[in-house]
Amino acid sequence: MDIKQKIEAGNLEATEKLIQGEPVLVDIAPAGEVIPGMEGKLITHSGPPIAWARMCGAQQGAVIGQVLYEGWSKTVDEARELLESGEVRLEPNHHYDTVGPMAGTISPSAPVWVVENSAFGNRAFCRQVEGRQQFGEFSDDALDGLRLWRDVWAPALRDGLLNRGGLELKPIIVQALQMGDELHNRHSASSSLFANAMAVAMVEASVPTEAMLPTLRYITNHNLIFLGLAMASGKAIADAAHGIDYSTVVTAMARNGTEFGIRVSGLGDLWFTAPAPEVEGLFLPGYKEADAGLDMGDSAIAETVGWGGFVLGGAPGILTLVGGTPEEALAYTREMATITTGEHPTYRLPALGFVGAPIGIDIRKVVQSGVTPIIDTAIAHKDPGYPIIGAGLVRPPLECFKQALIAFSQKYS
Amino acid sequence: MDIKQKIEAGNLEATEKLIQGEPVLVDIAPAGEVIPGMEGKLITHSGPPIAWARMCGAQQGAVIGQVLYEGWSKTVDEARELLESGEVRLEPNHHYDTVGPMAGTISPSAPVWVVENSAFGNRAFCRQVEGRQQFGEFSDDALDGLRLWRDVWAPALRDGLLNRGGLELKPIIVQALQMGDELHNRHSASSSLFANAMAVAMVEASVPTEAMLPTLRYITNHNLIFLGLAMASGKAIADAAHGIDYSTVVTAMARNGTEFGIRVSGLGDLWFTAPAPEVEGLFLPGYKEADAGLDMGDSAIAETVGWGGFVLGGAPGILTLVGGTPEEALAYTREMATITTGEHPTYRLPALGFVGAPIGIDIRKVVQSGVTPIIDTAIAHKDPGYPIIGAGLVRPPLECFKQALIAFSQKYS
Repeated sequence: MDIKQKIEAGNLEATEKLIQGEPVLVDIAPAGEVIPGMEGKLITHSGPPIAWARMCGAQQGAVIGQVLYEGWSKTVDEARELLESGEVRLEPNHHYDTVGPMAGTISPSAPVWVVENSAFGNRAFCRQVEGRQQFGEFSDDALDGLRLWRDVWAPALRDGLLNRGGLELKPIIVQALQMGDELHNRHSASSSLFANAMAVAMVEASVPTEAMLPTLRYITNHNLIFLGLAMASGKAIADAAHGIDYSTVVTAMARNGTEFGIRVSGLGDLWFTAPAPEVEGLFLPGYKEADAGLDMGDSAIAETVGWGGFVLGGAPGILTLVGGTPEEALAYTREMATITTGEHPTYRLPALGFVGAPIGIDIRKVVQSGVTPIIDTAIAHKDPGYPIIGAGLVRPPLECFKQALIAFSQKYS
Repeated sequence: MDIKQKIEAGNLEATEKLIQGEPVLVDIAPAGEVIPGMEGKLITHSGPPIAWARMCGAQQGAVIGQVLYEGWSKTVDEARELLESGEVRLEPNHHYDTVGPMAGTISPSAPVWVVENSAFGNRAFCRQVEGRQQFGEFSDDALDGLRLWRDVWAPALRDGLLNRGGLELKPIIVQALQMGDELHNRHSASSSLFANAMAVAMVEASVPTEAMLPTLRYITNHNLIFLGLAMASGKAIADAAHGIDYSTVVTAMARNGTEFGIRVSGLGDLWFTAPAPEVEGLFLPGYKEADAGLDMGDSAIAETVGWGGFVLGGAPGILTLVGGTPEEALAYTREMATITTGEHPTYRLPALGFVGAPIGIDIRKVVQSGVTPIIDTAIAHKDPGYPIIGAGLVRPPLECFKQALIAFSQKYS
């Protein structure tokens, strides 16, 4: 085989593995109990590696919140001192088979979704999704959302889930894609379907009413509850397609608000990074473009496995949040088909005549065409201390893909 | 005012009333307890009035099932004799502020959804939706679905609902229209959202686990559970717009499998009927076109208030069930805008750039253009004794609208 044939074979294998992924929610447990290596004063974060001093405002805010939540410091000033001392280790989620939305911070006592890719046996993890602390807010009120998750909601869900013997997520994902979700910023259908399943599971498990009722209220009123599940699913699916020799398929896209980074199946654990771009979008009342931080979060794992911006044509309901027209949304999905290696046979889009979602981003096609992936995402403030301020669309820097292609040539020539 | 101005004024009022409708689920109770006049050996049915001998096979089968369910006869032969004797009164649902899908049969002990239009104070009712007895099947198995509804599911839901103080349905309807439901044959989103609300309500009401668990399983696995709620909502909304002098707006479209009938706001209780048309559609495995009965059911109340075929462009997921392409679905919605009097400001369709649903069918526009409403519907067998056999699209006979326009000219000239 010449190199071109080897690349085609590698990409075929990677694409098949992306397609065959079967995410199953198997547990909801404290990160320190289930994530290998998650111990001591460790906080993991979204995006490629970054030191405290170079973190953007929102990520610094979220890390401060995480320190306070763990009780490692009592005040914001003490937390800053502790972080500046270097005593708290800061490492990327992706180095721990993990993802987190926005700042993406995770610490040992925080319960995470545990998703197993039952087709290949690997596991991935994701933190709780909420609209305050992960955006950089660290008020006591914002941290209450993390405490209730740890003390009430996650344990009640865990009881229901374990009694049920896990929950297959692919059926929910397939249905949600036919119900106007794109599984990145819009999770109205998936969250509702998940809440249906967990309501039955908690009643079956005889979860006490004083825990079940607040948990039911939480999950039935949280229309992004499934984002954490979709992200853990995406990571579990993408990881199974990682590490294939000669494959030019992207297996991670992640941003820390300072840098955008990608990883490629055939290029091991290397990150290819460039400065994080600005997000073009719409702002919540009281906020404006000048307040916005740069692109942030591991949530682009959604696009990495063919969801989010890649299936925007099937999710026009999200346009009130991110802007644009239904015609533009359809065009994005068609455009993404030009930079991908395959079409998912089960993730089908009714609005496009039941065509499959474009899957498997090929760095060669991106560099040759100059067409970068379209990602729809939320927007955090540039300074610490704020909740979500908006949402919009963003494209990664072409530079990440160029660097990766150069590294690929060097490795395989 | 000349007659044209009077018609415009009447239609403006009717359209406003259709738009202002606020359906609220206020009870789930046996028909005999809540529907005025529902007493004795009465079975109400879908469509315009029809005698036993002229009923189509599926409706006869459903009536037989209803007689057996009430225990008025012990065998199918006895039921037929009883029905031929005329001892059981058969009257249209619409004469009782009521609607029913397909054969639509309702008898006193069967629990119905009770929906109040809180903007105008009127109430409407609809029977349980299932895929067997209402399609004409009368086996013991099929009737078990009615008995469980009466004995377990409806009472458990009622306890939750009354403790909650009712449930506003418009928020669910608005969301579902942005999640790919058209609220006639596709109710995936609305049913899931409804199940979430009722799960919380039943836990709040401390419904005993032995009743709550089977009920939760029933509602979370029944992706047409909301059809009965949508139909009762549609009837409650349409009735508030009925009886307006000079209005040419349609306030009911209903079929009994033999005849298609319409009612018009300014024309009182008259029905304008013509033979029921064939449905063009797709058949479930084991059935074919030659097995199909003619168009049947009160469910076209959905299209009467701007849902169903009128919003098909926003619900391409249904095309696997009824056939056609997304482009055709969008074209149907645009076509319906040409025969209606308004656009709903709250029922918005993302796939069409958030345009409002076309609402208020004007018999003048239908007759002048020859464009009849598009209805998406299920298909029953031509003979008694079968469950659902398919689904598809149908248009009412133009003749109904012509007759109505002639009657209108006679009344108001």
